[in-house]
Amino acid sequence: MDAPSLLKLLEQIKEGRISPDEAVARLRHMPFEDLGFAKIDHHRRLRAGMPEVIFSQGKTPAQVAQIFKHMAANGGNVLATKASRTHFQAVKKAVHKAQYRELAQAVTLQQDGATYGKGKVVVVSAGTSDIPVAEEALVTAEVMGNPVAHLYDVGVAGIHRLLANTKVLEDARVVIVCAGMEGALPSVVGGLVHVPVVAVPTSVGYGASFQGLAALLGMLNSCASNVSVVNIDNGFGAGYVASMINRL
Amino acid sequence: MDAPSLLKLLEQIKEGRISPDEAVARLRHMPFEDLGFAKIDHHRRLRAGMPEVIFSQGKTPAQVAQIFKHMAANGGNVLATKASRTHFQAVKKAVHKAQYRELAQAVTLQQDGATYGKGKVVVVSAGTSDIPVAEEALVTAEVMGNPVAHLYDVGVAGIHRLLANTKVLEDARVVIVCAGMEGALPSVVGGLVHVPVVAVPTSVGYGASFQGLAALLGMLNSCASNVSVVNIDNGFGAGYVASMINRL
Amino acid sequence: MDAPSLLKLLEQIKEGRISPDEAVARLRHMPFEDLGFAKIDHHRRLRAGMPEVIFSQGKTPAQVAQIFKHMAANGGNVLATKASRTHFQAVKKAVHKAQYRELAQAVTLQQDGATYGKGKVVVVSAGTSDIPVAEEALVTAEVMGNPVAHLYDVGVAGIHRLLANTKVLEDARVVIVCAGMEGALPSVVGGLVHVPVVAVPTSVGYGASFQGLAALLGMLNSCASNVSVVNIDNGFGAGYVASMINRL
Amino acid sequence: MDAPSLLKLLEQIKEGRISPDEAVARLRHMPFEDLGFAKIDHHRRLRAGMPEVIFSQGKTPAQVAQIFKHMAANGGNVLATKASRTHFQAVKKAVHKAQYRELAQAVTLQQDGATYGKGKVVVVSAGTSDIPVAEEALVTAEVMGNPVAHLYDVGVAGIHRLLANTKVLEDARVVIVCAGMEGALPSVVGGLVHVPVVAVPTSVGYGASFQGLAALLGMLNSCASNVSVVNIDNGFGAGYVASMINRL
Amino acid sequence: MDAPSLLKLLEQIKEGRISPDEAVARLRHMPFEDLGFAKIDHHRRLRAGMPEVIFSQGKTPAQVAQIFKHMAANGGNVLATKASRTHFQAVKKAVHKAQYRELAQAVTLQQDGATYGKGKVVVVSAGTSDIPVAEEALVTAEVMGNPVAHLYDVGVAGIHRLLANTKVLEDARVVIVCAGMEGALPSVVGGLVHVPVVAVPTSVGYGASFQGLAALLGMLNSCASNVSVVNIDNGFGAGYVASMINRL
Amino acid sequence: MDAPSLLKLLEQIKEGRISPDEAVARLRHMPFEDLGFAKIDHHRRLRAGMPEVIFSQGKTPAQVAQIFKHMAANGGNVLATKASRTHFQAVKKAVHKAQYRELAQAVTLQQDGATYGKGKVVVVSAGTSDIPVAEEALVTAEVMGNPVAHLYDVGVAGIHRLLANTKVLEDARVVIVCAGMEGALPSVVGGLVHVPVVAVPTSVGYGASFQGLAALLGMLNSCASNVSVVNIDNGFGAGYVASMINRL
Amino acid sequence: MDAPSLLKLLEQIKEGRISPDEAVARLRHMPFEDLGFAKIDHHRRLRAGMPEVIFSQGKTPAQVAQIFKHMAANGGNVLATKASRTHFQAVKKAVHKAQYRELAQAVTLQQDGATYGKGKVVVVSAGTSDIPVAEEALVTAEVMGNPVAHLYDVGVAGIHRLLANTKVLEDARVVIVCAGMEGALPSVVGGLVHVPVVAVPTSVGYGASFQGLAALLGMLNSCASNVSVVNIDNGFGAGYVASMINRL
Amino acid sequence: MDAPSLLKLLEQIKEGRISPDEAVARLRHMPFEDLGFAKIDHHRRLRAGMPEVIFSQGKTPAQVAQIFKHMAANGGNVLATKASRTHFQAVKKAVHKAQYRELAQAVTLQQDGATYGKGKVVVVSAGTSDIPVAEEALVTAEVMGNPVAHLYDVGVAGIHRLLANTKVLEDARVVIVCAGMEGALPSVVGGLVHVPVVAVPTSVGYGASFQGLAALLGMLNSCASNVSVVNIDNGFGAGYVASMINRL
Repeated sequence: MDAPSLLKLLEQIKEGRISPDEAVARLRHMPFEDLGFAKIDHHRRLRAGMPEVIFSQGKTPAQVAQIFKHMAANGGNVLATKASRTHFQAVKKAVHKAQYRELAQAVTLQQDGATYGKGKVVVVSAGTSDIPVAEEALVTAEVMGNPVAHLYDVGVAGIHRLLANTKVLEDARVVIVCAGMEGALPSVVGGLVHVPVVAVPTSVGYGASFQGLAALLGMLNSCASNVSVVNIDNGFGAGYVASMINRL
Repeated sequence: MDAPSLLKLLEQIKEGRISPDEAVARLRHMPFEDLGFAKIDHHRRLRAGMPEVIFSQGKTPAQVAQIFKHMAANGGNVLATKASRTHFQAVKKAVHKAQYRELAQAVTLQQDGATYGKGKVVVVSAGTSDIPVAEEALVTAEVMGNPVAHLYDVGVAGIHRLLANTKVLEDARVVIVCAGMEGALPSVVGGLVHVPVVAVPTSVGYGASFQGLAALLGMLNSCASNVSVVNIDNGFGAGYVASMINRL
Repeated sequence: MDAPSLLKLLEQIKEGRISPDEAVARLRHMPFEDLGFAKIDHHRRLRAGMPEVIFSQGKTPAQVAQIFKHMAANGGNVLATKASRTHFQAVKKAVHKAQYRELAQAVTLQQDGATYGKGKVVVVSAGTSDIPVAEEALVTAEVMGNPVAHLYDVGVAGIHRLLANTKVLEDARVVIVCAGMEGALPSVVGGLVHVPVVAVPTSVGYGASFQGLAALLGMLNSCASNVSVVNIDNGFGAGYVASMINRL
Repeated sequence: MDAPSLLKLLEQIKEGRISPDEAVARLRHMPFEDLGFAKIDHHRRLRAGMPEVIFSQGKTPAQVAQIFKHMAANGGNVLATKASRTHFQAVKKAVHKAQYRELAQAVTLQQDGATYGKGKVVVVSAGTSDIPVAEEALVTAEVMGNPVAHLYDVGVAGIHRLLANTKVLEDARVVIVCAGMEGALPSVVGGLVHVPVVAVPTSVGYGASFQGLAALLGMLNSCASNVSVVNIDNGFGAGYVASMINRL
Repeated sequence: MDAPSLLKLLEQIKEGRISPDEAVARLRHMPFEDLGFAKIDHHRRLRAGMPEVIFSQGKTPAQVAQIFKHMAANGGNVLATKASRTHFQAVKKAVHKAQYRELAQAVTLQQDGATYGKGKVVVVSAGTSDIPVAEEALVTAEVMGNPVAHLYDVGVAGIHRLLANTKVLEDARVVIVCAGMEGALPSVVGGLVHVPVVAVPTSVGYGASFQGLAALLGMLNSCASNVSVVNIDNGFGAGYVASMINRL
Repeated sequence: MDAPSLLKLLEQIKEGRISPDEAVARLRHMPFEDLGFAKIDHHRRLRAGMPEVIFSQGKTPAQVAQIFKHMAANGGNVLATKASRTHFQAVKKAVHKAQYRELAQAVTLQQDGATYGKGKVVVVSAGTSDIPVAEEALVTAEVMGNPVAHLYDVGVAGIHRLLANTKVLEDARVVIVCAGMEGALPSVVGGLVHVPVVAVPTSVGYGASFQGLAALLGMLNSCASNVSVVNIDNGFGAGYVASMINRL
Repeated sequence: MDAPSLLKLLEQIKEGRISPDEAVARLRHMPFEDLGFAKIDHHRRLRAGMPEVIFSQGKTPAQVAQIFKHMAANGGNVLATKASRTHFQAVKKAVHKAQYRELAQAVTLQQDGATYGKGKVVVVSAGTSDIPVAEEALVTAEVMGNPVAHLYDVGVAGIHRLLANTKVLEDARVVIVCAGMEGALPSVVGGLVHVPVVAVPTSVGYGASFQGLAALLGMLNSCASNVSVVNIDNGFGAGYVASMINRL
Repeated sequence: MDAPSLLKLLEQIKEGRISPDEAVARLRHMPFEDLGFAKIDHHRRLRAGMPEVIFSQGKTPAQVAQIFKHMAANGGNVLATKASRTHFQAVKKAVHKAQYRELAQAVTLQQDGATYGKGKVVVVSAGTSDIPVAEEALVTAEVMGNPVAHLYDVGVAGIHRLLANTKVLEDARVVIVCAGMEGALPSVVGGLVHVPVVAVPTSVGYGASFQGLAALLGMLNSCASNVSVVNIDNGFGAGYVASMINRL
């Protein structure tokens, strides 16, 4: 149920072909089209102008494919995160144009090519191991219609690498910073830019990193005031928040 | 060292009254004007167009007053957070125009009355006890030049109160949501609006709230994708992030 | 040793066929019929009028089957929770009428078809991934003789879905609410109904959900006063408590 | 705005003295009568038939008194929990019939003397130090119209004390069990009764009790299936849940 | 290097066949007989009259077998805990008289059949799943020369089972109590006996049991004063401490 | 109800002055002599031959004094732990022979001077700050009739101090070891003695000691197998357990 | 008992004025000169050439003064950390040359003015609030005979401040870095210098800083490999470790 | 880009074969030679005179091999930690001289045989299971040009083993101590030596060791002041810090 369909429905009322009461009934009915295990809310895209999203982890390939197909039928972009190649293969059979972004572990379907973001979303990451999360953020921002750029492997222990690349940061309207271990990068980046920074702790590290807890706490206590934080490894959330900001 | 002073300095170069080398020396020197216990970075305001801020907790009234006075001399707005009435009294003696915002526990000095925000920042809070944190966010946004509105005491267990006031939410360009206990309000608000939501867990609660940990974890795990989070009781941080977003 | 057997025993005393002393000895002996690794307490069902239950996790299929068989011989309903299909296959060989409830990961034997609950137990869940726990609660309530209904995939970030289905909630005498991530749903549901709500945190989520800890803390801090909580993923416990309440 | 007032309003419509539109406006307006810092929801009592409740901790005596007075004007019972004697004194001046329950740290106003509970609510506690929480539960149940009884100082290390008093337990329709330290009492009581048990961990203990965490975890892991849990020291919550159950 | 060897050595000194200096050198050398990866301390048994023990987890079958063989050569009892059947098979090849105690996951070699304990060590456990840990405690006590008895599956939610078996407890000189979940059993048992109770939390449970943390905290906060605690799942430690006590 | 009273009661039965049935009734009644806020179980002393104990923290001086007086009337020793000087003064007025042990923060009444322990209980502590807990253990052991000795300020970072005093350790039948910070002392002492070691973590330390958690975890993970552990700062528990062992 | 006294003692042996046996007796006796509540180990200074140190927190002024006086009598430097002005006043009366370092909350006695460090110890701190801990480290290094320098208020969110002062860092042989909140500074400093960095987390911060836990975890997970960490707020420990390194 | 290459470049400037500008461009370019997934910083070795290091865990064999090859081309030593045999095999194909240190799980390439350390680095470990971490520390110190020695299996419960080997400790200029379980060894060793001690907690243990947390907390709270700590299982970090110290 996307905008054109809604328009069509409302025009049918105007033309007297269906009664307002019937229209209400249809509208009420449509968003909750019941698949047996999940109510897909097409209204969500209508409301937000955002793509529909599936969190694949813990779902079978068949489930992901079925939901993906239903979503695709609504005409917008679709994104399945934390998707394995096996998930992708099931989706691919159902929706041929679906693509797999290996690094980001994401399946995408780009049916709407419009640019919604008013500036550039720049994704920064601290180490090589943080790249999967950073890529998930990047792909999310792309699917949501933002120009993107990235700056990877610029951890704080080699501060000159970051400083040698501040040019990329200056172009950003929103910055996403992904880091594991001590999670210090958002504080440093936050001090260098004058735009909002969305920080993503990653579960990269061992021992006292406690699966990303150290990085999470570090970011929540950032001494840079323009930093806000999303869940550990939540590249999607960061990409989504950044896209929301970039549309303003 | 604010914008006019910088302009003056640069004009002196143009007019040949001081050499560029000397200007560099002055610029390098000025931001680090040493007070003995803290280097005040006047460049920060210059860079960010933001007011200067003091975190008063753990500082003596005399220290807060001394820093406040130095900051005030630069001509911009000044904000002292987590300030007791005793802190305020010390500041008041040094800077007569300083004002105390009781609920927010903040001392403010509004020397720059310009509006920088492009839309409205709306602050929402769950319970009466969350108001101090919510007010800190509100005052911060005000001092940073944003039109603001608020919606208090709309906890999720009485969802009709929130739903009866969605009009206020629709006017927001950025929403700040403060909640203690289970911290569920940002998820519900996030689902109702199509703009970025900055969530602030508060330490309101007892027992298994663990001084705001429950609310913090709840917000980090929000099922609404447009939510990002700042530290427990960090009303200032939320106001700052929201202001950054609202200037874009 | 169920109610009829006890009656028979007591009648034998009345008829003078066995002495009271001998009866006491038998009664003392019977509930502790020793299987070598577990004392099955048939008295429990007698006392509580409840089915007998096996927690299958960490037990071998052979162990589960042996206990199940002994329990089945007592004539009441039997429920094996957290049972894999392999567990079921072992039980099936021993007790042919046993059935597998795939979604709930439960093996059931329905020998007593009576309705014990005075009203309806409604199970509500936030996301698709919470369904296994929700189904365990549902199956438990069914096996314990309650009319049931469910309302799935009504997370708080899309509050209109829940509000569009309040009809189902109005029919409930007890509500069970299962949610992972921020665990906010019980608070919202608790505010909408005037009956007891049993909340079940699930381990659904990642990162700072800490295997259900975030949801657990959220529910314990619920601002809705009619909410009490059971262990993470403890669908059985919720179904059991709800059944106890519904029999009153 | 209680039931009689609502009836009166509706009769005015019937009699044509006010229009339905105006009635809607009044109804919408009344529950949100704005006190400046808290929206008192009179509808809540209407909906739930429950007394109005104030959590006094962190509120000034003046605030508690003001809210209490407004609530009292609606004609139902009022309960202020975690109230110090100072809170009480402020309330007493505003509402003369208010009473202080010292052990429970509660201020009560009993304007509605009806009995709503169908059976008896029995409150059990482990040690002398748990009594304040137990009393809060007891007073809550009383204010909500339940016959109550209690059984204190029956910790599990002296199991014979509990067993010597099972008569009291047999009379219960709902049991509330309060315990600190290892929090084992609900499991034992749960095994002795065939009715729902609401467990309240208390912060009684030291060292590894971690302010009630040990008791909380113990109760959540209870091997008795008829146990559900509320927050640490939340005697009010337990009394409320028990009352909800006892009205069914 | 066991007692007879030491005696022989000392007699050689007396008989003038070796000098005291040489004896000192031998004694210093012998306990540190270097296997390349672990210094086996034969003195430990000499000092304590205790068997030698290997913690098998994290060691290869070959390593366990090699250490076991060296230990066996000293003539006392040997115990390998947390040993898989694969570990046992490797040991069996090196030391033919070694036996496998399946339930306890222990390999034993009983070369010293003496009884060292002055009374009986009784092992109590709460649930079927706690048996592996309980058996490790039992086997340890046996290998260390104690008469033993056990009482399994007597969880606190069915308190009558425990009370029906107090006879076994009365015979105990030391009691070991193993329990997972809420870990309440040691408190109840501690109240029933007048001898020391060694409590072993087990990792049995799920969700908020946090791998035995709930049981551990519960036992540390026991309201029975005769209870002390060992590490989670440390059946060996409990058996060892109990044996030490039973030798006094 | 102490031993002489029991004897008297039983003699009355023998003399036919009361029936056995009546005696049973009296016995059942007497131990629960109700003081209004706590049931004092005189049977406990009868059963265990142990003194009666009051945990003073969180109780008013008046409450402690009232309970103390009732306990004293039974003729045995009485111990009030965690008692301030103010608590003592209230007790002193009620029971003149009560004494205050300042370092141990304990009030004692020694009415039974018998020696129950078969050997010596030795209390060892790591630092000067651990002495209050160590003294509580010592006083408890004394009140329970044990010969005692102590060895203070022998932390592991100066291992020679401990080694220079092993003579005291050799005399022990049971050793109690109190330590804060890293809690390493029980492991070292455990390796030096061949008797049971009861370890008491203390809350001494700061930062990452987390009020005794570091010491607690250290002791639970002790590599010395003869160590068992009681709660943080629980000197009383350690003294009690040690006394139980020393009576065997 | 310092080096000169030892020399004198040994010379007395050489000169035949006391026997070696007597000397041994004296040496054994002297280090354990018993003050009743603490064994002062004069050997420690002899062994390490380090000053004697008192941790004042939790000790009474009288206790600190008594220990301080005994230590002072040995002729070396003495340091009392976490000392209040009240502690100082008590010490001052006993040892007139003692001085109070207000910012560091330390009492010092400088009897040995020798320089032991081979290079400079530089102390860096992130914020104004970290200065007390930084000063404790600085004073410790001074008392232990090191040339020192400091660089305060150079938090990572204003990275240019730190970069503008790298000259000071280049002079360091060892660097101590103190930081609260996210604790990111040691990683950045560690990347800028080629010498060992000792990191001290401070308890500065609020909410999710959890009294320094966030900073501690951040530092333990530092991506700079030349960083090691001491306890939260342990400025003394950092100064001590740095001094040990600087003497090599 | 190692020292000789830099020299060559600078000589080309001197000889006028390339301009300083071009040299700057090359220098700026070279360290960031982009491999697509990681910027290798050759400057780091130049700056620190340290080998280049790869953290292999979470990287594919192919990735490790590719990075290793690039690093090897710079002429210095290369170290890959946490490397499986499979990682090694991939590296071996790319760099034939690479070697596998099985116990340390490290791949090494020793192209620079110089000795940089001024004294000996001694690695001490508590138990057999700590050896992998200890060996990683040892190999790191070796690759960084230090003479090394080790002392394994000297846990504190058998303190005589450690005391019998103090000779090895006396030779050390820096000591690394690895221990799991209670992590007490660094405190004891710290008290025996007068040089810096770098402590490494290991994840060895079970139950309440919480994957090394107990050992970590123990070490952070060490009562020996010459101890600093690195992350759990971070043998590399300890070897690196020790090497930095040993070069001073």
